[in-house]
Amino acid sequence: MASRVLSALSGLRSVRAVPSLAATMSTTTTQELIPGYSYDTLAISQPSQHVFQVNINRPKNLNAMNKAFWREIREVFEQLGADSECRAVVLAANGRMFTAGIDLSEMADIGGMVMGDDDVARKARGVMPIIAAYQASFTALEKCPKPVVAAVHSACIGGGVDLICAADIRYCSDDAWFQVKEVDVGLAADVGTLQRLPKIVGNESLVRELAFSARKMYSAEALKCGLVSRIFPNYESLVSGAVEIATTIASKSPVAVQTSKAALIHARDHSVQEGLDYIATLNMMMLQSEDLRLAAMAAMSKEKPTFSKL
Amino acid sequence: MASRVLSALSGLRSVRAVPSLAATMSTTTTQELIPGYSYDTLAISQPSQHVFQVNINRPKNLNAMNKAFWREIREVFEQLGADSECRAVVLAANGRMFTAGIDLSEMADIGGMVMGDDDVARKARGVMPIIAAYQASFTALEKCPKPVVAAVHSACIGGGVDLICAADIRYCSDDAWFQVKEVDVGLAADVGTLQRLPKIVGNESLVRELAFSARKMYSAEALKCGLVSRIFPNYESLVSGAVEIATTIASKSPVAVQTSKAALIHARDHSVQEGLDYIATLNMMMLQSEDLRLAAMAAMSKEKPTFSKL
Amino acid sequence: MASRVLSALSGLRSVRAVPSLAATMSTTTTQELIPGYSYDTLAISQPSQHVFQVNINRPKNLNAMNKAFWREIREVFEQLGADSECRAVVLAANGRMFTAGIDLSEMADIGGMVMGDDDVARKARGVMPIIAAYQASFTALEKCPKPVVAAVHSACIGGGVDLICAADIRYCSDDAWFQVKEVDVGLAADVGTLQRLPKIVGNESLVRELAFSARKMYSAEALKCGLVSRIFPNYESLVSGAVEIATTIASKSPVAVQTSKAALIHARDHSVQEGLDYIATLNMMMLQSEDLRLAAMAAMSKEKPTFSKL
Amino acid sequence: MASRVLSALSGLRSVRAVPSLAATMSTTTTQELIPGYSYDTLAISQPSQHVFQVNINRPKNLNAMNKAFWREIREVFEQLGADSECRAVVLAANGRMFTAGIDLSEMADIGGMVMGDDDVARKARGVMPIIAAYQASFTALEKCPKPVVAAVHSACIGGGVDLICAADIRYCSDDAWFQVKEVDVGLAADVGTLQRLPKIVGNESLVRELAFSARKMYSAEALKCGLVSRIFPNYESLVSGAVEIATTIASKSPVAVQTSKAALIHARDHSVQEGLDYIATLNMMMLQSEDLRLAAMAAMSKEKPTFSKL
Amino acid sequence: MASRVLSALSGLRSVRAVPSLAATMSTTTTQELIPGYSYDTLAISQPSQHVFQVNINRPKNLNAMNKAFWREIREVFEQLGADSECRAVVLAANGRMFTAGIDLSEMADIGGMVMGDDDVARKARGVMPIIAAYQASFTALEKCPKPVVAAVHSACIGGGVDLICAADIRYCSDDAWFQVKEVDVGLAADVGTLQRLPKIVGNESLVRELAFSARKMYSAEALKCGLVSRIFPNYESLVSGAVEIATTIASKSPVAVQTSKAALIHARDHSVQEGLDYIATLNMMMLQSEDLRLAAMAAMSKEKPTFSKL
Amino acid sequence: MASRVLSALSGLRSVRAVPSLAATMSTTTTQELIPGYSYDTLAISQPSQHVFQVNINRPKNLNAMNKAFWREIREVFEQLGADSECRAVVLAANGRMFTAGIDLSEMADIGGMVMGDDDVARKARGVMPIIAAYQASFTALEKCPKPVVAAVHSACIGGGVDLICAADIRYCSDDAWFQVKEVDVGLAADVGTLQRLPKIVGNESLVRELAFSARKMYSAEALKCGLVSRIFPNYESLVSGAVEIATTIASKSPVAVQTSKAALIHARDHSVQEGLDYIATLNMMMLQSEDLRLAAMAAMSKEKPTFSKL
Repeated sequence: MASRVLSALSGLRSVRAVPSLAATMSTTTTQELIPGYSYDTLAISQPSQHVFQVNINRPKNLNAMNKAFWREIREVFEQLGADSECRAVVLAANGRMFTAGIDLSEMADIGGMVMGDDDVARKARGVMPIIAAYQASFTALEKCPKPVVAAVHSACIGGGVDLICAADIRYCSDDAWFQVKEVDVGLAADVGTLQRLPKIVGNESLVRELAFSARKMYSAEALKCGLVSRIFPNYESLVSGAVEIATTIASKSPVAVQTSKAALIHARDHSVQEGLDYIATLNMMMLQSEDLRLAAMAAMSKEKPTFSKL
Repeated sequence: MASRVLSALSGLRSVRAVPSLAATMSTTTTQELIPGYSYDTLAISQPSQHVFQVNINRPKNLNAMNKAFWREIREVFEQLGADSECRAVVLAANGRMFTAGIDLSEMADIGGMVMGDDDVARKARGVMPIIAAYQASFTALEKCPKPVVAAVHSACIGGGVDLICAADIRYCSDDAWFQVKEVDVGLAADVGTLQRLPKIVGNESLVRELAFSARKMYSAEALKCGLVSRIFPNYESLVSGAVEIATTIASKSPVAVQTSKAALIHARDHSVQEGLDYIATLNMMMLQSEDLRLAAMAAMSKEKPTFSKL
Repeated sequence: MASRVLSALSGLRSVRAVPSLAATMSTTTTQELIPGYSYDTLAISQPSQHVFQVNINRPKNLNAMNKAFWREIREVFEQLGADSECRAVVLAANGRMFTAGIDLSEMADIGGMVMGDDDVARKARGVMPIIAAYQASFTALEKCPKPVVAAVHSACIGGGVDLICAADIRYCSDDAWFQVKEVDVGLAADVGTLQRLPKIVGNESLVRELAFSARKMYSAEALKCGLVSRIFPNYESLVSGAVEIATTIASKSPVAVQTSKAALIHARDHSVQEGLDYIATLNMMMLQSEDLRLAAMAAMSKEKPTFSKL
Repeated sequence: MASRVLSALSGLRSVRAVPSLAATMSTTTTQELIPGYSYDTLAISQPSQHVFQVNINRPKNLNAMNKAFWREIREVFEQLGADSECRAVVLAANGRMFTAGIDLSEMADIGGMVMGDDDVARKARGVMPIIAAYQASFTALEKCPKPVVAAVHSACIGGGVDLICAADIRYCSDDAWFQVKEVDVGLAADVGTLQRLPKIVGNESLVRELAFSARKMYSAEALKCGLVSRIFPNYESLVSGAVEIATTIASKSPVAVQTSKAALIHARDHSVQEGLDYIATLNMMMLQSEDLRLAAMAAMSKEKPTFSKL
Repeated sequence: MASRVLSALSGLRSVRAVPSLAATMSTTTTQELIPGYSYDTLAISQPSQHVFQVNINRPKNLNAMNKAFWREIREVFEQLGADSECRAVVLAANGRMFTAGIDLSEMADIGGMVMGDDDVARKARGVMPIIAAYQASFTALEKCPKPVVAAVHSACIGGGVDLICAADIRYCSDDAWFQVKEVDVGLAADVGTLQRLPKIVGNESLVRELAFSARKMYSAEALKCGLVSRIFPNYESLVSGAVEIATTIASKSPVAVQTSKAALIHARDHSVQEGLDYIATLNMMMLQSEDLRLAAMAAMSKEKPTFSKL
Repeated sequence: MASRVLSALSGLRSVRAVPSLAATMSTTTTQELIPGYSYDTLAISQPSQHVFQVNINRPKNLNAMNKAFWREIREVFEQLGADSECRAVVLAANGRMFTAGIDLSEMADIGGMVMGDDDVARKARGVMPIIAAYQASFTALEKCPKPVVAAVHSACIGGGVDLICAADIRYCSDDAWFQVKEVDVGLAADVGTLQRLPKIVGNESLVRELAFSARKMYSAEALKCGLVSRIFPNYESLVSGAVEIATTIASKSPVAVQTSKAALIHARDHSVQEGLDYIATLNMMMLQSEDLRLAAMAAMSKEKPTFSKL
């Protein structure tokens, strides 16, 4: 299977900094798996209190996104969203790259469905729910009420860009590169890049250049345009940095943090006045939460508050 | 009162460049106050023709936002909006920092209201108009038809960020830092930061990092991400720079400038086509104004036009 | 006519790098004109396969936008949109600058219409269709399904900024400068700058500063704020660079590229969820195109695919 | 003053059923006025528990809307909105008709402002806040969280139609007639009729006929098209009927009723999905109110519940 | 050609009241044609001052909509929109029915385009501009600033319903019937019925019944559901009635009437608050028109005002 | 269980026409159940080709909506949506009434969750997904691509109104009555009535009267206001009538019918122009379906076309 994925990746030869297999393996093994979080394509760990880490875990296949991955990425974020033990999530990957994008075997399935002699409307009917399901897989990161910090190392190709655009915060290592790959396979990106990327970064000219040409963008340009907000020298420091910010977030009032996430996503899609009305509606309740009192008292006493689960 | 405010500001010790009290005082005293503009928490001056300057003026309380401030900031921008002598506004602050954010005494009032044993719906009903009033205080900067240039020095915390996000142009001094502080008091920012900040800057990853972690952002990062468009070495050059751009703006046709502000705010909240329709509707009238003729003649004759009041 | 245009351009003396007339002429003459593309104010060439280049071609008038230009710029993009030979467009200019903006003779016409003694409603009725027609001229770049790469050298003033904001990708030479000039002629920009510029760049403070003050912005600042995504040392390298990216784009599946453009423009004006629904609706058909199969096979075989016309 | 109003009303001669002066007077005198509700142009009474009645009270002037009226109608609905004793409002009128519409003296003021020789943009600037204030007067009925039942007898002209379109429920007597009068005074209705009427009734053809021709519509047609939902034989039965439904409404949980009003107004202006999200956000709090428990217990025990004030 | 059209109309046998050929002819001949209004498929007359009448004029072909009709219906409404002599339009039809809908020869053209072996994306690209052009033909009625009164007799099938939904006011004769015919030809209506009909009438259940079943709706039901606002006994009284309301409308201030039309169409597509903002923006100019003064004076003096052209 | 439901229904004594138990039973027994459609609270039958009938089937509990019902109503419409054998659905009910609304046992569960002493924000977090799941149960009718015809007899209370508002077509028997019951249990309706009802009927005054007062509306008023589009004398004729229109719909091109449903739902929530763009995007594909050719040929040959499954 790995060779099949490899053949689809024209850009792969230029991966700049390939961590040794040993380094990759040690990364994988140091994670302790969490009871109740059992996935085939994902490795779940808990690096600090209230912080969960989701690692894409098909290193032999360059973390290519196969059927199981598309299903599991949605399931894990639904599970984390409902798990009151979790207050922030780090999304990283095991192996030599973040992800090579969609697995070719997935594409073949769709190809079979659309290439036949059936009526065009009937083929469309068959394809529609598949696209919708793919979209829902990544929208699950947005629907998860807890902040998601994506930590990208090495290649992040095609579906990988769609995936991280649905995260809240994006960090990367120095060797990271990003590629909106879809036009190279005759396709317009339809699981989030074209919709979210322009609202994430402040350079529409660059967004279109990337989307139309499928050229690679390296970490420095990604930082400059605002796709990521911090670069780290290597994989280890990247994951530490992501865990650190997630730990900081997890120490705050979960009511405040999760209401902020809801408000930010709402604001992106509405006018400022509608956004103000929405947060006022939320806060007329959230202000009645005990977290406000706890945080205020802690601010007075200079002690660290302890918030109950949410 | 000042000590109470101080105790709420965990980040205060790290203020990097504190101007001497003398410098602060001289700043305050050089402003001539304007007849008809009498406020307790604000000092109003007129640094150049058609340019008014509003300084937050509770230096002993670190410009914390108390009840009077919330009322007066709205009143002054309504008054300036209606004063045809005014064509541009500079918003700055007296004392050692821009503002420490909301005054804790304000928070205590709301706290008292929400912590009681009353029915949850009835408490919500009591809180709602308070949130709406706070929001209206800062939206007054947007509703003021004249451009507002915020000039931020030293700390700009919590409500301060909400405030400057409603200005048109943001400059800061080298020692400035910004903190979306609300999660630290168990609260999602509800007077504008979450709604306006992502539409102002081009780095959504950074916006969420700031909002979820309450970490400080210093002037250089603020410039890079686009929160401010210029940095000045110190308070004096900052205020001069702000007054200078305001003076330039005040020299232009007020019809053109104010129609541009209206169009930009409308455009932010609508599709491009709706924005085009709106400006066409406005301009079918504004093109009939004498300002067009005056400006065109001035362009021909290379002389500086004089526009009548608006 | 040229002197009249000149007199309108207060900023013209500061043009920093004026190419010699010889250089300008050679630029013009090396373009081979295309049969069926005959325009008075535009020179059309085909620098590479499936790539068309539109040069503004009134060099003696500093490429000021006269009546013919406003009509032809719309016509040419409608023609290119319908020409299946064309897959990407470069928009550049002949002569010493990109454009000096709207021709004063145009302004005079509108001036005559609005300055008379007629009833205000009736004058408005006369002006409205003119504004709408101007807007449609530049919206034609957006409606053209093929990507448009603007290549700006030297001055890009007033209407020039409106024009390039409707392009997909913006490159410039080192000597380029940009000026939202409208307030200087007593006017709010109404053909796209105020609507599109804030959605293109990630610095709203800067956008308002430019719009209210009419100050110039030079190439370095344009790159930093995201108005352009690349700077080239001079005119020749700029045009080569623009043609190169256009050629890359033209080598991709036209179905994929044009669907991506449609999706990006839709996404800008809608919520993320609506954008996802739209691309799903488009792709349930586009996935049935032969381009998907061709691109997939090419990716397998490492050969360059040949797509049929669209 | 009355004669001046009269002269403006071309349709007045066809008033079909003029109640005798005696009848009108008795109506006026039977209302007991409420402490704290003192208005010049409005008479406020409390016909049943938690139900307030606002009667337009300029019978000698045919209830024409003068300056005081425009100010007071807004004030009274803000006062009622904040008065927890009030749970439903009846809006009726004293005298021989509901209202003759805007008072000509008001029109004269605006006329003076717009007819001068001032610059068109500057006159527009003067007019804008006046229109906005008029609009806010009637939008106050919508912003009042308690349901408003309009009870219309005889003529309801011009501004009267704008007014009742902002109510929640509309009843009328058999002799009522309605006239969208604005085009007869050279004006497009700008205080709500053109915006709200089409969303209230189910016959867009009729709405445009009324708006463009200023023809009268009698009660039967008003019922058929859905402008009113019930007709009563005369003034007395109309007011009783309105008070009766208001009393029924006032007996229900105020949390449920006021949340329903908020949701219905929100739904009118949003997609179904956005409306569902909004009510879910409201109800995750409102379900925690004691009213739910009280109402549920009452439903079990078949006893009438008593809700606390809101 | 007529027979071809006939064969496509399954419902034709049930036409209930067929006017004699003589009656039809006399209708046609009594219209005096207007200089400058020369159309093949439309007969233009001027039945009263400032009122123009457009009659569909392919009686031998049952007014089926052929290529020329689609082009001319757009042209005539653009011409009438720009003709200041015209203030209101009546849209009727010559011959035994209003229209049999789209001409089958049109369908055959599209059929040829979509049935070939070409790539699905490329066929779609060919079809798209055709659909858009059809839509623009009927949207021309909405874009025409003058009110359009549709007068429907006998059959109004398929495209006929799309057409009249874009008119402002709809009247019909007693023998009229309406049929949303598209599903019978394997097609979802795409030129306006599905978009406009539900916003015109107040019975969504009925709208879907009509759209999904293609059943006929007779005049009485059309009146009850609000598709038409008046029924007349026969063709002659129908046309007189339509001309009469158009004449009334044409006697009003054209500024007031046309601003009202613009506001109503805007209101349909926006929230109430956005609608209020829009009419305020329009009226700050329109209130400065001489029409307001003329109408006010006329209201005082009881004389009929004369408004200048618009 | 039945008595508990009964006790919650204050209006039950006034049920006007109770079918005998025998009649009800025969209705139930004549339905043949369909393999693969096995539900506890719903009885599924197939009354004619391509038409499925879903009957609420808890007659002993007055069809009160319990946990199983809320789950199954969603599942059955997802199953029918995916079953290409099904082209139209009839939704009716077994027993003496359509439905008594939500089962009190359901309310008790929610009550237990919200009445505890937990933190208000944490209780809200528990309630939110429950409300969202309820909403999704009824939105499933809208998401089902096949038209749904609701056939209502006798009482349709509370959740019953929410349910039928999500259907496409509503018919009722003469004895039907409707009650927006929620305010009687201290609750604003949050599963669709407040959002959909005002967009379905043309009488906003009536909608608010019903929602605020919880009064019953009988069949005649439901027809007049447009909630239902046809009344039948009794249960048998009602179900026949519903099956008949469903059978007609099922005989049409499924591509045309289902595209029409999608377009109508989209149009409700968007502007007319956006609706036109959407149907054009859909139809550039759907026009390529074989259904268009089959329907066109059938129209020519006067024979009934046979469409393949969708």
